[in-house]
Amino acid sequence: MAANDHAEVVLLDLWASPFGQRVRIALEEKGVEYEYMEQDMINKSTLLIESNPVYKKIPVLIHHGKPVCESLVIVQYIDEVWSHKAPLLPGEPFARAQARFWADFIDKKIYECTTRLWKCKGEALEEAKKDFMEIVKTLEVELGDKTFFNGDTFGFVDVALVPFFGRFNAYEKIANFNIEKECPKIVAWGRRCMHRDSVSKILPDDQKIYEFLLMLRKYLGVE
Amino acid sequence: MAANDHAEVVLLDLWASPFGQRVRIALEEKGVEYEYMEQDMINKSTLLIESNPVYKKIPVLIHHGKPVCESLVIVQYIDEVWSHKAPLLPGEPFARAQARFWADFIDKKIYECTTRLWKCKGEALEEAKKDFMEIVKTLEVELGDKTFFNGDTFGFVDVALVPFFGRFNAYEKIANFNIEKECPKIVAWGRRCMHRDSVSKILPDDQKIYEFLLMLRKYLGVE
Repeated sequence: MAANDHAEVVLLDLWASPFGQRVRIALEEKGVEYEYMEQDMINKSTLLIESNPVYKKIPVLIHHGKPVCESLVIVQYIDEVWSHKAPLLPGEPFARAQARFWADFIDKKIYECTTRLWKCKGEALEEAKKDFMEIVKTLEVELGDKTFFNGDTFGFVDVALVPFFGRFNAYEKIANFNIEKECPKIVAWGRRCMHRDSVSKILPDDQKIYEFLLMLRKYLGVE
Repeated sequence: MAANDHAEVVLLDLWASPFGQRVRIALEEKGVEYEYMEQDMINKSTLLIESNPVYKKIPVLIHHGKPVCESLVIVQYIDEVWSHKAPLLPGEPFARAQARFWADFIDKKIYECTTRLWKCKGEALEEAKKDFMEIVKTLEVELGDKTFFNGDTFGFVDVALVPFFGRFNAYEKIANFNIEKECPKIVAWGRRCMHRDSVSKILPDDQKIYEFLLMLRKYLGVE
């Protein structure tokens, strides 16, 4: 991407957001330079509200002044605009449908459930752990012995899931359980993803995420 | 599509499902012949369970023996496989992202809310009507004075939304309210869609849908 295009790509985001991390990993994969604008989610900026009037949430990718919202929509947009390099969705329609199905599965299931891992206590926490392990096991079966979800190349489903892998350690510490014991393939996959510059550059270290979730717990009065 | 391809496309569906109707409208738009297999959702068939092991839900499109699940994923698959005719997603990345954003908005918001329109009573019903009208108003603003959501041509967002328009009359009768008064543009859009063979052929008439929802209410013990 030419240097003078730089300011043409702006990302409204929050450092700890797994949805924002998806977008940043996709931009890194494509080698797109962009202006990063950390957002205050308590006092939302006019730019955020005007760019995403429906949800007023991050991430928002603003490209040539036009906002694109919702992380999986943004990642597909990035894949279509910067199609010269690192394709994220496969080329063949059936494989594309599979990738969209699994990315959607992650969206529908994992966030709500992982939120319960650090918000709940007692029985509700046990229920959350059970639900979470069921989701991860479903993904473990789908991954099987493949290197990445789509086969040999890092792609759409990997981008959708890996920011949550970046929180596994924090979930384990907070909720006191072990993911690798039951799902060794998913954990090995996550470590493979972490070897990629695009992923290791974007995902914060475990301790920082752990402290962030503890801070959220305090903020929400869970402690 | 050649006649000998006919049995290569099989649809597992339920006549009254707005999600299944999306898929059937897309197949009609493309002129794809297919074998329709009505499913019993109480005693689910082995074929349905094996074709959609994650959700065990309709619709499932089976193409050359390979199942594709989740209605919006299926509609995109249909658009990519039968790309020779009636494109549903626009060609330009930003317009594609907008279409995906709004189809996803409909998925996230409208079904849960419309279910409350025929399931709830009293205050919860008033809340459901208020939420529903807010969603429809948001869509009314997005539609504006365009013929279809993407401009002049019937496309992805129209396919995603029109099966719910096909239930507007039933919702109004059951919940005793008027949609057109507050959202005349959406109602005019729905009527325009109904002039298309693909839509009028697939959507059941108002009375049949009304009776189906009354039957569901009885089945769930709402009466």
